[in-house]
Amino acid sequence: MRRVFSTQAIQNAIEKSLPDFQKIAGSSGVRTQESVRRQFARDESHFVAPPPAVVLEPTNVEQVSQLLKLCNDRNIPVVPFGTGTGLEGGSMSILGGVCLSTQQVVGEPTLREQDFVCSVKPSTTRIALNDSIKHSGLFFPVDPGADASVCGMVATSASGTNAIRYGTMKENVVNLEVVLADGTVIDTKGKGRCPRKSSAGFNFTELFVGSEGTLGVITQATVKVHPRPQFLSAAVSSFSSVHQAASTVVEALQWSIPVARIELLDDVQIKACNAYSGLTLREAPTLFIEFHGSSEKEVADQTTAVEEICKSHEALDFDSGASPDKMAILWKARHNAYYAALSMRTGARGFTTDVCVPISKLADVISETRADLDEHGIHGTVVGHVGDGNFHVILPTIEEDKSEHRKIQSFSDRLVRRALAADGTCTGEHGIGLGKRKYLREELGENTVRLMHTVKKALDPRNIMNPGKVLPEL
Amino acid sequence: MRRVFSTQAIQNAIEKSLPDFQKIAGSSGVRTQESVRRQFARDESHFVAPPPAVVLEPTNVEQVSQLLKLCNDRNIPVVPFGTGTGLEGGSMSILGGVCLSTQQVVGEPTLREQDFVCSVKPSTTRIALNDSIKHSGLFFPVDPGADASVCGMVATSASGTNAIRYGTMKENVVNLEVVLADGTVIDTKGKGRCPRKSSAGFNFTELFVGSEGTLGVITQATVKVHPRPQFLSAAVSSFSSVHQAASTVVEALQWSIPVARIELLDDVQIKACNAYSGLTLREAPTLFIEFHGSSEKEVADQTTAVEEICKSHEALDFDSGASPDKMAILWKARHNAYYAALSMRTGARGFTTDVCVPISKLADVISETRADLDEHGIHGTVVGHVGDGNFHVILPTIEEDKSEHRKIQSFSDRLVRRALAADGTCTGEHGIGLGKRKYLREELGENTVRLMHTVKKALDPRNIMNPGKVLPEL
Repeated sequence: MRRVFSTQAIQNAIEKSLPDFQKIAGSSGVRTQESVRRQFARDESHFVAPPPAVVLEPTNVEQVSQLLKLCNDRNIPVVPFGTGTGLEGGSMSILGGVCLSTQQVVGEPTLREQDFVCSVKPSTTRIALNDSIKHSGLFFPVDPGADASVCGMVATSASGTNAIRYGTMKENVVNLEVVLADGTVIDTKGKGRCPRKSSAGFNFTELFVGSEGTLGVITQATVKVHPRPQFLSAAVSSFSSVHQAASTVVEALQWSIPVARIELLDDVQIKACNAYSGLTLREAPTLFIEFHGSSEKEVADQTTAVEEICKSHEALDFDSGASPDKMAILWKARHNAYYAALSMRTGARGFTTDVCVPISKLADVISETRADLDEHGIHGTVVGHVGDGNFHVILPTIEEDKSEHRKIQSFSDRLVRRALAADGTCTGEHGIGLGKRKYLREELGENTVRLMHTVKKALDPRNIMNPGKVLPEL
Repeated sequence: MRRVFSTQAIQNAIEKSLPDFQKIAGSSGVRTQESVRRQFARDESHFVAPPPAVVLEPTNVEQVSQLLKLCNDRNIPVVPFGTGTGLEGGSMSILGGVCLSTQQVVGEPTLREQDFVCSVKPSTTRIALNDSIKHSGLFFPVDPGADASVCGMVATSASGTNAIRYGTMKENVVNLEVVLADGTVIDTKGKGRCPRKSSAGFNFTELFVGSEGTLGVITQATVKVHPRPQFLSAAVSSFSSVHQAASTVVEALQWSIPVARIELLDDVQIKACNAYSGLTLREAPTLFIEFHGSSEKEVADQTTAVEEICKSHEALDFDSGASPDKMAILWKARHNAYYAALSMRTGARGFTTDVCVPISKLADVISETRADLDEHGIHGTVVGHVGDGNFHVILPTIEEDKSEHRKIQSFSDRLVRRALAADGTCTGEHGIGLGKRKYLREELGENTVRLMHTVKKALDPRNIMNPGKVLPEL
């Protein structure tokens, strides 16, 4: 049985607990001002919720542990909050309750250069991590676009543009320090350990990757870092149809060309990027491709191989003369694609889809999706990490327009059903949060959903960790 | 509280259940003959246990489900058994009870060529899988040496010689069908799904990888398959000391040369291989290296780069002129290293260690280990997947010699403590089984061990799944 929370009871319990929170986190770590609470009320999704009753800002793992223990003892729901860059409402305090911001849990990244790992606290974002290890010639590859907290990226099972070569968070996390609902602190692989592989005990690291704050709070992540590629180059190629562009990607994978990134932007998205980032790209479905290698020859060979495949799919052009500066501009444009899409409509917020399908189905699913948008007159751009079979439709919407919301929601439902029918998933990298719970039963099956509840109940018997997220109702 | 089994009660419950087992699995699927039971009494480790009371051989997932439900209802412990190639006693029926052999759960591998995945039933071994997909130009890379069941390799979190390039089982499993203790059948990622990535729900796939039959029975595994490399070459290089050989590997990794395999065999092991496989290698610490690439030039570049590193570490020689035939002989010798080591002592069985340490500690830990062997006059060979920081000491022992066993056990304890002190693990790829349970608390910490019990109790409340394995006593 799920415990049902009364928001009034939560509010009362929190008010009574404020002095105890202050004893643990200091008065600066317990923030009740409305302006602060409002800052922690939303992420970057279209979801709306009331602000949390209080924002707690612990500064170390001991404080996180004591705060969770207290909340658990008093049945107070806790919603972990990183940088607030989530896209599925996962860090919203939908029941009021405690927002536990991890951004003051600070500490310098600890690089073990020879072992290709680095340990970070929740305050460290991916760009900060990369800045801190730049001198070593190593880098952290997972790149979802937003400058998210690395620990938050663990919680979401984030990935992004170069997962195709370097893997998603799941493949790049080595060890996690996690505070469980009752305040117990664990190290999933044992404190300080970082062997490249292990068969010792249950794989708890991966259980917490993608758990979205429902099983515990991640207070340290040890992640893999990789040698920065010695040689890079990029190419841009445009096509008459998204189907041709997607088919090109499928063939490049089948030839096992180790591209580092291969991103599709459809004509509408390119138009938006041109306007937003001051580019002059041909307004057609386009692939942005990046090559990494240890020699100029290696990179050139990859480029030639991909060029041939592009041409065999009737590419309109293939521009591989990108200088490092031009490459930086292109990738910045790609990263800003979301904001570019939004900027096409004044006052719009983004509704973003995130399906991922097996590669063999990609070209068809993307084509059908583009046709669906056009048929229903929906304003949206298609952009995605097509090398993984993952793509997004960014839908700039006017928050107050209820009928538009319904139209978009219907489109999103159709898209998810199309992905599920193609043996895919409703979310490749954004997580379930609030918005995707309704699809999880259809995707995973009743028994797997029940097993999720079994595990959730075992780890968090009072259901205080981010209640109402991820798990569908039983 | 752990439930304590009475072996007499188990025996009685099984005897009463035989007709019901037969109703489910047919009379040919319920085997009580002593000769059969003896076949399922041991794996390839040095552990000894009585044979199981009965061997059940279901032929499909429905039968597995019904059998487990029955055993769960009647408190009968169940030990899943694959090909019996384990090295830690994980599939031994230490309480008598039911041995559930999965080898009759048959079915052709289902290849989804364009999606680079293949689904296999428990009867399929890794060689059978590779034979069945040979025509496609794809291959399944995880190669622990033994021709193990792929589903068994999932349960053990196996890896082997080319994990350095292609990953271990954890990185190569996409979806699992698992029968839980109460007979519930789940698909960890949803039935038939194989997107390259997903953030949908808890990562149960990885929870079952390495669970060694303590959380459920794996009845189907969907694994990644990879394009067979177009060009291969190999090199053999020997050194005056294991320290120099290991340092070479560390440097090759730091230069991020994408070697496909890099294996260390110490002088004693080379001697054994020469005798067993009819080779004439220099009897010194030696690296076997394999290069994969998409062009001859790429492979040649890798070879040259590694040759330079070998020479800078004072390699005694570097032979990269290996023809495909010679390569096959070398790798066969590497695969047979275990049997070669055993053959050095008549009537010996193998005791094998399996530590894995961070790369930065590898050279020191291997050197200390070789010195420890020599100091205590212990007959053993060092061989390992040094690119992962993982190495084995193979110790041919005479089963009846108790004092030798104690000596070897002390050596193994010292080795594990050395690995743990170096932030490593007691097992890189063999699993915990029986033999490593005593180290798990020290490795993972009390809280993580308690969490293992919490999860075990949630998934298998009656503790029928492989009791006495993996989890240390609370």
